[in-house]
Amino acid sequence: MSKNLKISELLDYYGLLLTDKQREAVEYYYNDDLSLGEIAENLNISRQGVRDSIKRAEAVMTEAEDKLGLVMKDKQIREGLAELRRNIDIIDELNIKRYRSNDINESIKRILKELDRLSEI
Amino acid sequence: MSKNLKISELLDYYGLLLTDKQREAVEYYYNDDLSLGEIAENLNISRQGVRDSIKRAEAVMTEAEDKLGLVMKDKQIREGLAELRRNIDIIDELNIKRYRSNDINESIKRILKELDRLSEI
Repeated sequence: MSKNLKISELLDYYGLLLTDKQREAVEYYYNDDLSLGEIAENLNISRQGVRDSIKRAEAVMTEAEDKLGLVMKDKQIREGLAELRRNIDIIDELNIKRYRSNDINESIKRILKELDRLSEI
Repeated sequence: MSKNLKISELLDYYGLLLTDKQREAVEYYYNDDLSLGEIAENLNISRQGVRDSIKRAEAVMTEAEDKLGLVMKDKQIREGLAELRRNIDIIDELNIKRYRSNDINESIKRILKELDRLSEI
C-alpha cells in the first residue's frame, strides 16, 4: 500500500460510501498517518483486518470516481469559477476607474455573491 | 412500484452504479414505459426477477443520492449559473447602450464562454 494524497481527496467525496470501519481505518492511515499496528489496536481488529479494510475502501472509492468522476468534475468547476471571478474583477476595476456605473456595480455585487455561494456547494 | 420522474433523473446521475441487468430493467420500466411482463421477455428473466432488479436499482440510486446528493448539487449549480448569466446579460446590455467599452466586452465574452463550458460539465 503506497500512501498518496489522492486517497485523502477521494475520502472527502466518497467517504460516506464506506462502512464505518473502512472509513475509520482509511482516515487513521491516510489523514492521521498511523501505522497498521496502531490502527489495529485502536479499532480492536487484526493487522490483516486493517489492511483488508483499507484495500477495500480504496477499491470502493476508486471505482466510484471512475464511474461518477466527482473529484474531476469538481476541479473543473472550481477552475471555471476562478476564471469567472478573474474576469468579473477586471470589469469591476474598469467600472470603478472609468465608468462609475451604479447599475454595473449592482450586477457585479450579485455576481460576486453568487460566485461565493457556488464555491461552497 | 409507483413510477415517477425522479427515478429517470437518478438514472442520469447514478446509472453507472447499477449492474447491466438492473440498468436495463429500470430504463425499460421508467424511460420506455414497458410492463414488467414485456421487460421479463426482453431480458429473458422472470417477472419477479425484473421486479427485484428494479427495486434493487431504486435502492442503490436512492441511497447514493442520500449520501452524495449529486442531483441536488447539480440543480443548485445550474440555478447559480443562470443567476450569473442574467447579471452578465445586464452588464452586457448596459455596456452596449452606454459605455461601449471593448475591454468590458472582452471580459464579458470570456465569461459567457466559461458559463457555456460550465453548463456542459
